[in-house]
Amino acid sequence: MRTTTAWQSHDNSTALRRGEIDRRELRADDIAVRVDYCGVCHSDLHAIHGLVGKPTDGLVPGHEFTGVVTDLGPSVTRFALGDRVAVGTLVDSCGECRMCRAGQQNYCTQGPTPTYGGTDRIDGTPTRGGYSREYVVRDRFAFQLPAALDAAAAAPLMCAGITMWEPLRAAGVGAGSRVAIAGLGGLGHVGVKFAVALGADVTVLSRTPDKIEDARRLGATDVIITTDERQLAAAAGSFDLILDTVSAPHDLRPLIALLDLDGTLSVVGLPLETTVPLMALAIGRKKLTSSGTGGSTGTAEMLTFAADHKIAADIELLPSAQVGQALSRLEQGDVRYRFVLDLADLDQRAS
Amino acid sequence: MRTTTAWQSHDNSTALRRGEIDRRELRADDIAVRVDYCGVCHSDLHAIHGLVGKPTDGLVPGHEFTGVVTDLGPSVTRFALGDRVAVGTLVDSCGECRMCRAGQQNYCTQGPTPTYGGTDRIDGTPTRGGYSREYVVRDRFAFQLPAALDAAAAAPLMCAGITMWEPLRAAGVGAGSRVAIAGLGGLGHVGVKFAVALGADVTVLSRTPDKIEDARRLGATDVIITTDERQLAAAAGSFDLILDTVSAPHDLRPLIALLDLDGTLSVVGLPLETTVPLMALAIGRKKLTSSGTGGSTGTAEMLTFAADHKIAADIELLPSAQVGQALSRLEQGDVRYRFVLDLADLDQRAS
Repeated sequence: MRTTTAWQSHDNSTALRRGEIDRRELRADDIAVRVDYCGVCHSDLHAIHGLVGKPTDGLVPGHEFTGVVTDLGPSVTRFALGDRVAVGTLVDSCGECRMCRAGQQNYCTQGPTPTYGGTDRIDGTPTRGGYSREYVVRDRFAFQLPAALDAAAAAPLMCAGITMWEPLRAAGVGAGSRVAIAGLGGLGHVGVKFAVALGADVTVLSRTPDKIEDARRLGATDVIITTDERQLAAAAGSFDLILDTVSAPHDLRPLIALLDLDGTLSVVGLPLETTVPLMALAIGRKKLTSSGTGGSTGTAEMLTFAADHKIAADIELLPSAQVGQALSRLEQGDVRYRFVLDLADLDQRAS
Repeated sequence: MRTTTAWQSHDNSTALRRGEIDRRELRADDIAVRVDYCGVCHSDLHAIHGLVGKPTDGLVPGHEFTGVVTDLGPSVTRFALGDRVAVGTLVDSCGECRMCRAGQQNYCTQGPTPTYGGTDRIDGTPTRGGYSREYVVRDRFAFQLPAALDAAAAAPLMCAGITMWEPLRAAGVGAGSRVAIAGLGGLGHVGVKFAVALGADVTVLSRTPDKIEDARRLGATDVIITTDERQLAAAAGSFDLILDTVSAPHDLRPLIALLDLDGTLSVVGLPLETTVPLMALAIGRKKLTSSGTGGSTGTAEMLTFAADHKIAADIELLPSAQVGQALSRLEQGDVRYRFVLDLADLDQRAS
């Protein structure tokens, strides 16, 4: 066994504790990654609070991280020591089902192995995430981090980024597409950047006017304040795609009304169940869809596109010792737009 | 005023009564149609039973009919006396909104004028449907009935047919598309014919095995009995499009599970609201959509396609005096697959 230092949840609170954890010895197709930067995702909060139905004692969150390859299993050919790499929300899958074969391991029909809070397919140990100094991962679930990308700002691409990228691509967004992004947060702000770079006309839908300036800086041509009935009415039927990143339960009707004929509402914030007014979809033949992160094909494509267009997250970088603060502030919505933990402080002795 | 004979509902029962009703004098762009054949649609039952929130006293149902032009307003150029025509669910719309301009008058943002149970946009009189011997309609809401189509069997194309045609086209169904049709009834059986003619591999989803033979005769390559868990499990992830024609409330999850990556569930049976498991859509990036009948562009295209491929409904033709029987049997699901009323008996004196 290898050991490393990590931030662990023990009592469903955001006050994580520093501790030693095991990592497996490298298998033939494993690489060891020194984790340098790990994004703080809203899912981490859900997991810590036990909302995903998994045991939380000893949980190590973190599923969007970047780092450097420090060790290689004997059959690894895709990486060399010292390579910069990125790891996202999945670390294994069956590899044989139609979804895996399509490069959509996120939809593996056997269930993919999540980066933390899951169970290793071979030895049955719990998977522990990127709030730690080292991660051991099967090579095909790590990605080369393009040289053009800053390692800290790129970390959130591995969850927030791919979560926005795949629905944009699935909807065929390109030049002139009319795209709205509901919610300018960790996901939304990357979504705006990707959609703009794909050539779309992008509008941000926000409950309050305080993010108008940011939205325009990110490339949005318009902002609609969704609490203003007149603005909503004026924009009826004007979008081909809405990416809804809002995770709190909310009525989908006002968003559906903003879609044009054959438009798509893609709900990625994932309020788990919702009553859908089918009649609202029927009038205008509109589509409701959802998706969850992405697979290897989309992730590789997304990283290349991000590098080509110099796209990464707007981050606030904190020493990992401030993880509790980051989680509390995230809980209050006080972040523009993603916290990233710098794990280098885990090399120092605990104070 | 012109008058004609019609079958009217007075007391929310299916025992319609024969009576005289008014038709307007022709406006410049109106045609008068001698109604020869009118299909009996499930919506007619809803309307008679007052389920659509409209007054039912004096209601004349019927919104899929064919007949012959018997009179022309002075500015009509699209039709001549004696032309065979078909009329569907709409008889007017604003003509100016983006939906009308796109030939999707069914989604007119001002609300289209339904063929019955609506209000005329000009004189404010109630619209009365095709269970009658004459209809006066604005020329652009009538369609030439192609010579290759039987006037009785073609009548249901104007509601059941277009309701299936538009979602098949919107989903881009073509050679090799994997399409399932849930529910082999008035809508479903026409859907199978269209999908097969478009080149799709078509499977019928049915609760009971009694329609297997019909499904194969209509061109389906497979039938899945949806009450058989093993059949459902074996077919998981195997369709690009499911057209769900079932109007009774039902769980959408088993249907969603049958979709492949990026597949679409198109609910056209319209159980009005339903709780949608967004997570079920998210796993496989699936789409839920709905639609309601069609517009002028789709209807014209559908009639041409139907003529080219000799597609019409499988009907049971009854003298219109048997309308009560038709409605009762429809209510019990006892029809293969559409009742059509022959209105010629309205020329005789009431017995």
